[in-house]
Amino acid sequence: MKASQFFISTLKEAPSDAEVVSHKLMMRAGFIKRLGAGIYNYMPMGLRVIRKVEAIVREEMNRAGGVELLMPVVQPAELWQETGRFDKMGPELMRVKDRHDRDFIIQPTSEEVVTDIARQELRSYKQLPKNFYHIQTKFRDERRPRFGIMRGREFTMKDAYSFDRDAAGAAKTYEAMFAAYKRIFDRFGLEYRAVAADTGAIGGDLSHEFQVIAETGEDAIVYCPTSDYAANIELAEAVSLLAERAPAAQALVNTPTPGKATCADVAQLLGLPLSRTIKSLVLATDELDEAGDIVKSTVWLLLLRGDHSMNEIKVGKIEGLKAGFRFATLAEIEDHFGSKPGYLGPIGLKKPVKVVADRTVVNMSDWVCGANLEDFHYTGVNWGRDLPEPDLVADIRNVVEGDPSPDGQGVLAIQRGIEVGHIFYLGTKYSKVMNATFLDENGKPAFMEMGCYGIGVTRIVGAAIEQNHDARGIVWPDALAPFTVVICPIGYDRSADVKAAADALHDELQAAGIDVMLDDRGERPGAMFADWELIGVPHRVVISDRGLKEGKVEYQGRRDEAATSMAACGIAAELKGRLRG
Amino acid sequence: MKASQFFISTLKEAPSDAEVVSHKLMMRAGFIKRLGAGIYNYMPMGLRVIRKVEAIVREEMNRAGGVELLMPVVQPAELWQETGRFDKMGPELMRVKDRHDRDFIIQPTSEEVVTDIARQELRSYKQLPKNFYHIQTKFRDERRPRFGIMRGREFTMKDAYSFDRDAAGAAKTYEAMFAAYKRIFDRFGLEYRAVAADTGAIGGDLSHEFQVIAETGEDAIVYCPTSDYAANIELAEAVSLLAERAPAAQALVNTPTPGKATCADVAQLLGLPLSRTIKSLVLATDELDEAGDIVKSTVWLLLLRGDHSMNEIKVGKIEGLKAGFRFATLAEIEDHFGSKPGYLGPIGLKKPVKVVADRTVVNMSDWVCGANLEDFHYTGVNWGRDLPEPDLVADIRNVVEGDPSPDGQGVLAIQRGIEVGHIFYLGTKYSKVMNATFLDENGKPAFMEMGCYGIGVTRIVGAAIEQNHDARGIVWPDALAPFTVVICPIGYDRSADVKAAADALHDELQAAGIDVMLDDRGERPGAMFADWELIGVPHRVVISDRGLKEGKVEYQGRRDEAATSMAACGIAAELKGRLRG
Repeated sequence: MKASQFFISTLKEAPSDAEVVSHKLMMRAGFIKRLGAGIYNYMPMGLRVIRKVEAIVREEMNRAGGVELLMPVVQPAELWQETGRFDKMGPELMRVKDRHDRDFIIQPTSEEVVTDIARQELRSYKQLPKNFYHIQTKFRDERRPRFGIMRGREFTMKDAYSFDRDAAGAAKTYEAMFAAYKRIFDRFGLEYRAVAADTGAIGGDLSHEFQVIAETGEDAIVYCPTSDYAANIELAEAVSLLAERAPAAQALVNTPTPGKATCADVAQLLGLPLSRTIKSLVLATDELDEAGDIVKSTVWLLLLRGDHSMNEIKVGKIEGLKAGFRFATLAEIEDHFGSKPGYLGPIGLKKPVKVVADRTVVNMSDWVCGANLEDFHYTGVNWGRDLPEPDLVADIRNVVEGDPSPDGQGVLAIQRGIEVGHIFYLGTKYSKVMNATFLDENGKPAFMEMGCYGIGVTRIVGAAIEQNHDARGIVWPDALAPFTVVICPIGYDRSADVKAAADALHDELQAAGIDVMLDDRGERPGAMFADWELIGVPHRVVISDRGLKEGKVEYQGRRDEAATSMAACGIAAELKGRLRG
Repeated sequence: MKASQFFISTLKEAPSDAEVVSHKLMMRAGFIKRLGAGIYNYMPMGLRVIRKVEAIVREEMNRAGGVELLMPVVQPAELWQETGRFDKMGPELMRVKDRHDRDFIIQPTSEEVVTDIARQELRSYKQLPKNFYHIQTKFRDERRPRFGIMRGREFTMKDAYSFDRDAAGAAKTYEAMFAAYKRIFDRFGLEYRAVAADTGAIGGDLSHEFQVIAETGEDAIVYCPTSDYAANIELAEAVSLLAERAPAAQALVNTPTPGKATCADVAQLLGLPLSRTIKSLVLATDELDEAGDIVKSTVWLLLLRGDHSMNEIKVGKIEGLKAGFRFATLAEIEDHFGSKPGYLGPIGLKKPVKVVADRTVVNMSDWVCGANLEDFHYTGVNWGRDLPEPDLVADIRNVVEGDPSPDGQGVLAIQRGIEVGHIFYLGTKYSKVMNATFLDENGKPAFMEMGCYGIGVTRIVGAAIEQNHDARGIVWPDALAPFTVVICPIGYDRSADVKAAADALHDELQAAGIDVMLDDRGERPGAMFADWELIGVPHRVVISDRGLKEGKVEYQGRRDEAATSMAACGIAAELKGRLRG
């Protein structure tokens, strides 16, 4: 490809609405162009990267037995009403009416449609397992689209849906998809982690996220450097940091802590480590009558070590809190504790409260907590002696760096990541509600066991840049680069030698199937190099008269500090060797 | 590819709502699956054909200098309001509101968005010409979707938009796209014609349709077998069939024609050829005031030879009728002609009427027309002698087979066709209204000259089938077939020899880049052959123990009457030779 036959558009400055580095660089390098909030034109340079992502995904999905089809963007509401998602989903589900006033949605995913296909087409156990996927435009009407195409409204996703005879088959399919995803991300050339994940609203029993490692990632990924353990912090198990409870050594003392309303302030005042304090979080749950009015509320006290933070996902799994919870109101707090926040604790409650202690908290001795009296804290508190054992002990905190790994194989570390893939074992969640059955060997109908497997095609482009960039621009891994090699001739229009050498190298690399770009725009060298560094092409060859006189060209990898002089006659073979290897 | 790793689903009967053969066969062969009115899942077999169409289109567009990008499916209404199409277009434009109640549309085409890109990105004459294209999902909310994916609501289209400095440049681009389209349709292996076409609502000055020839086509294509002339019947020029007017030979006679209200009946009654009669069509135009009320109506009488039919497109180009016309009401007819329809003519009008004669009509002598009196016609009518010359002479009829070609190179023939491609020279229609200018060499802004170029990717699949099918199913040209070769082993699971031979042939063809399918489903031969004939795979190889004993396999082309016995050891080379050639 020659630049004059392509479209290159770079900017010195990123638009002011670009918050993150990938968005800024994609705008500056001319990969995308904003059409509306969260809606982008994929410009020629950006589309090439998207196509590379798609091609790798497609190849590995096919290799793993996936069968590609294409389900529509605009889908009739009926199927979505059948699963209840038409009503349950919020405004992120884009609803639209046709000329006959019939309801449709613009697909955010395709569970309903694919399950409808499966219940009609997959009638016998002989047809199972089957794994259908498509790579299609999706729409989610995000309340606040941001980060360019990392959280856009219109985006491209690969979504696959598997149908198995039974849970054992579904588990095998899940494992095969897990392996396929690893191959996909390996081929991308990105640093990533597959982490155990919460199954969230989509339900099901088993789930992994594929996270591209990036400091700017929104997710915290917990992993154990000395074992295979890896999980999203939402899910990562926090074990007790105290194997057993030490005997009480201190007396209970109501200690003045004037104006010290946080654990950190109290610890500092008392000259104690923060890990000796306990923080009190007050939640509430409501029972509703049929009309939706509150008939009864329950107040919950969650106790965490002062240096730990609550994990809402874990709290939401506690019996009694599963159906939803809220923070207690000030009135509820004063009513139950007789004090305002900042000085709360589990001793001397005015009204009954459900006390949930974190696994570490329950083994602490001689600890500090609020005295339910403004400007006072208890010190030397001990379970059993000073207050009853907690109603419930549970893992309710986020792990922190240095925590023991739950597999007992070392200590945990934490990285930031961007979720770009997610695989779920769905079980019969959709097949039951949509009556997707097949006939088994005995002619009996059984529900299909399903899994679903997503990859955010356009999001990967953003995530790859978040991970791979420097002050000059993007640094593509070979597999995702819009062009793998750029040839920068100095004086293409002036020197017949330069033109001949550049054209010959271009033609030879292109014939070898390498995505090569010859910059024939006639830009000055500085501007030309800056463009291609911004765009992030991984391999650059500069051809000049001066070099050719000595039989040399200059090669520079995008991460190299400086160019290397190489024999002009050997450069094609050298690049072909490297890029095919 | 082996059948067990793919998804094959054939039906004995087509669903009752399938009206045309391509729709029936696509449903029966499992290419598509209906999701809603005019909305289809593209099943794995069908998607393979779509991808082949896309690949050919993409290669030839790139070769012709097109640059691929991707514009969104969901587009903000603002740009569509800028051109006025948001309000002007009917309900076929799918409108949708987002969570903030902002207006969007689901794109039927992308003139607005691409012109918006061009006016921002193409600022200098140095950047022109540029031809952007995308292959993207489109939506048109058709009042009556039908014919499967030939006239669906959601469909895939390749639409390209070119930007040139001036009309001369735009004409060159148009020619290059015309040539690219010819290469594309040649590569498809379909019988087609490029025909001059009316520019219709999209406007502009020059337009060609690419029509796939099929008896079931909705369009009539006029062409001259002995020259290059070809046009849609909407546009095809009808020359006068009479070089000059012969002198009057008969007297004007008011002749009783009781109950004979059509030209055919009158001609039969009088023993005259139909070509001696003239039919009268009465139209009306209205002048409206600012409130939209009719202030004045004009009645028009169009005269056509009895065996000719009116061409509405041509009539709509006549000065005075351009702004729109309607058929006259019965009251208007009786008011102006003093007779009811069936006996109307240009002689003895009660009120002034604009008379438009077809080019042939004006040179007729001694003709027959209605007498404006029930049950009477005039015979022996002659211009000048019996009535004044017409107010206007114009080409207002459809050509018929045997008419002289307007290029003077022979006579016209007519075929039916399905429009699958359409190229337009748009001029500055969009660039002016959207102020898409560039700076020329003198630094002066000028409007870009545009063209647009569409190919109905999914429609081509239907059109190809309309053209290529027989009683057993689809007959794909090699280039579009979902699989080029199918290997049908007899006893794949029972015979190690058959399995080994089938696997080896499969692997060798696949390694050669040929799309080969090995049917390992274990179906009976009859059912297996019927499936692949329905699906339309062009080349079939049957491998059986009986054949292998003699070193033979059976080859049958999809159009062949019978199978040919071929050496088993030579079949791979034979197929590779044929399919690469």
